Amino acid sequence: MKVLNHLKQNEKTALSQLLELLRIPSISAQSEYTAEVRRCAQWVAHFLGELGFKVDILEPGGHPVVFAEYHRPENERTVLIYGHYDVQPVDPLDLWHSPPFEPVVRDGYIVGRGAVDNKGQFFAHLKAAEAWIKTAGALPINVKFLIEGEEESVSSKIDQFVAAHPNLLKADLAVISDGLQFAPDMPAITYGLRGFASADITVTGPAQDLHSGSYGGAVANPIHVLADLIARLHDKNGRVAVPGFYKRVYKPGEWEREQMDRLPFDPENFRAGAGVPELYGEPGCSPLEQTWSRPTLEVNGIWGGYQGEGVKTIIPAHASAKITMRLVPEMIPEETCHQLEAYVRKICPQTVKLTITTAAGGKPYLMKPGSRWLEAARNAVSTGFDREPFFIKEGGSIPVVEIFQSVLGLDTLLIGLGQVTDNAHSPNERFLIADFHRGCRMAAALLAELAASS
Amino acid sequence: MKVLNHLKQNEKTALSQLLELLRIPSISAQSEYTAEVRRCAQWVAHFLGELGFKVDILEPGGHPVVFAEYHRPENERTVLIYGHYDVQPVDPLDLWHSPPFEPVVRDGYIVGRGAVDNKGQFFAHLKAAEAWIKTAGALPINVKFLIEGEEESVSSKIDQFVAAHPNLLKADLAVISDGLQFAPDMPAITYGLRGFASADITVTGPAQDLHSGSYGGAVANPIHVLADLIARLHDKNGRVAVPGFYKRVYKPGEWEREQMDRLPFDPENFRAGAGVPELYGEPGCSPLEQTWSRPTLEVNGIWGGYQGEGVKTIIPAHASAKITMRLVPEMIPEETCHQLEAYVRKICPQTVKLTITTAAGGKPYLMKPGSRWLEAARNAVSTGFDREPFFIKEGGSIPVVEIFQSVLGLDTLLIGLGQVTDNAHSPNERFLIADFHRGCRMAAALLAELAASS
Repeated sequence: MKVLNHLKQNEKTALSQLLELLRIPSISAQSEYTAEVRRCAQWVAHFLGELGFKVDILEPGGHPVVFAEYHRPENERTVLIYGHYDVQPVDPLDLWHSPPFEPVVRDGYIVGRGAVDNKGQFFAHLKAAEAWIKTAGALPINVKFLIEGEEESVSSKIDQFVAAHPNLLKADLAVISDGLQFAPDMPAITYGLRGFASADITVTGPAQDLHSGSYGGAVANPIHVLADLIARLHDKNGRVAVPGFYKRVYKPGEWEREQMDRLPFDPENFRAGAGVPELYGEPGCSPLEQTWSRPTLEVNGIWGGYQGEGVKTIIPAHASAKITMRLVPEMIPEETCHQLEAYVRKICPQTVKLTITTAAGGKPYLMKPGSRWLEAARNAVSTGFDREPFFIKEGGSIPVVEIFQSVLGLDTLLIGLGQVTDNAHSPNERFLIADFHRGCRMAAALLAELAASS
Repeated sequence: MKVLNHLKQNEKTALSQLLELLRIPSISAQSEYTAEVRRCAQWVAHFLGELGFKVDILEPGGHPVVFAEYHRPENERTVLIYGHYDVQPVDPLDLWHSPPFEPVVRDGYIVGRGAVDNKGQFFAHLKAAEAWIKTAGALPINVKFLIEGEEESVSSKIDQFVAAHPNLLKADLAVISDGLQFAPDMPAITYGLRGFASADITVTGPAQDLHSGSYGGAVANPIHVLADLIARLHDKNGRVAVPGFYKRVYKPGEWEREQMDRLPFDPENFRAGAGVPELYGEPGCSPLEQTWSRPTLEVNGIWGGYQGEGVKTIIPAHASAKITMRLVPEMIPEETCHQLEAYVRKICPQTVKLTITTAAGGKPYLMKPGSRWLEAARNAVSTGFDREPFFIKEGGSIPVVEIFQSVLGLDTLLIGLGQVTDNAHSPNERFLIADFHRGCRMAAALLAELAASS
């Protein structure tokens, strides 16, 4: 097949283009990088423009969205391919072995912020389109690329963007590569995702830091109050203690259990990969079930009082925590936010002032088994990776998938190209070079499979 | 009395000298200020040298100690006057209305880091000595000044210093002004202090920050574990839950209760001073009893995970907290440290790694009622402040007081010149100018009273 040969013969160029893309520090959550985020959008737009796509850099408010369209009247179908060109913050910076935005090739990996999440993955689809155009002169299916710039900063504006542009985004299905294979050399198609919600809590006590000798014992300490609130968010079995939290939680069906049982999952490997002394979770729940089919509430950050060298004998004026939650079908993010806020307000004592803000993210997602798109994806993965895929779920969240379904009525094929060991969101983020090239070939095959599937 | 007149006539000079002393950023807990701490010691040594004291800048390891001695054979007694020239860190810096080391005079106050804790207070005793020498040509009692430089950074080395120099520090009693009056225009003599101990806790989970989607629910979150540990340090009544913590706690005697009942204490004022919505404490304990006669355990700082802008969906690799405890007679700091460590180790789950280090500080202190020195102090305060003092206790800790008693066999007169509203350890630390001058006169009178008491 000419397209696949072209990709194989031009792997060096593809790699050096990806390194160029990774050099742009497009951190969307930190405002000092705003200009770099825009520069990254321009890079992506330029690449697609050169291929003959009709490209727009759209401004929905917040960071720009790259939208590019390829249309040939004789093609019957259209696929909407989504990705995000923004990346996570880089702290703690001192744990990186090389600067996060000076990507390097090391031990068969591309190392740098964004390598796997998501630049390396969406770029594989761009290279697949390029290969078709350069070898066949055209794409076998119409393609719309939607590459956004604030997925890593609660992508609320892309939701509004999709809702505001149903015609622009009209397609037969969506494709996203923004996740994981099951394991090295075990490519997979993901049929379910967890949903998302977040909350920020601040407990305020005294008007300012107080001397712990003069006031200690007679004034509530905001750190103690916050710690107590956090402690009461889970019960002793690791279950979230917020009333109503599990009310709508679904039970996985037979097909799901079969797929899970087929997987060569080793809890000890999982534990070693996390680098923890022991695993954790609800009694009787395997790690896969825990991360795929059970909801969570995690405190992602906490701070208050003196964090420096030596001792500072104060009762701090305030203490804060950042929380995110992962939701499973049929939970409703807005309802979960409301439950959390009501519970925290109820258990917070009167000796302090409580501030809590919540934000609902994407709903949980589950693709219906037996879809023709799943069959097309199975074939494309077999071609690109030279082996059969597994069918899996993922514990992460891609809010836009839920929006594609609820607003555009689209199913989304989720074909993750990364590995769990790729350090997404962590120092030394990386992407296996072999996975990048196999991903390019899978993406090329997928365009033909989707065009031909019935 | 010539001495007191001299002080009144030279108040302007005294104030400008104090401002000069406050301009030296002698923060002992932060190593970047080491040179400034030394410069401050030199300033104090120079001042006393000019008065004719025999002065040494001693190097016990850590920051230097200023020791100065005035000896006249015809004086029968010697008083050891202690102070500290080091100050607390200044953060949060943005809450200061003027730079902490550019002291200003505002609304009758001297505002700047160290104004009340402790530069303004020990300097009053230096000015008193100066006034005697300039008016009478001599001091009525022999005086040893011990002005140290690491009281604000767990002054463990001064303890060793005192233990190593019993002859150098030989005296009939000690005097310290490093605390509070009972209220504005209500000077007081303090007969009891709380003791001190500290602990640092770090909970380590995964080898590095993990993606909360991929691992959330199946890996213990170090922030949750730390919050749970902190929540379990107190029971629902605000009592410390560490087993054995209260085992040795004394009950205040009749004389103590009488002194406490005489005080015009207003809980509502205390609450407003702290700026909290409601007071806190053990059931049936007044704020005075709580802060003077009950032990505490306070978390002074906490941190872990992402503290920046936006959302970062991680399970953090670790979380930490800094703890200090205030102890009452007959608690033993080392034993309390041991109890805390044993309890935290026992309740910490196996899903994480725990690091805990503890440090015992000074023992609690209680001066015996009826001492002749208390009578001398009462007269001196009456002279300097033109009103009768109260007899009070303080919730803070001055470890050196306990060392003076246990190592040198000395009683210590504690005559605090500050106010609870002076923002010690907080932004906008200040010292009432009137309190400074009255303190100078009290200190001058005290030298004569102590020489004459029987």
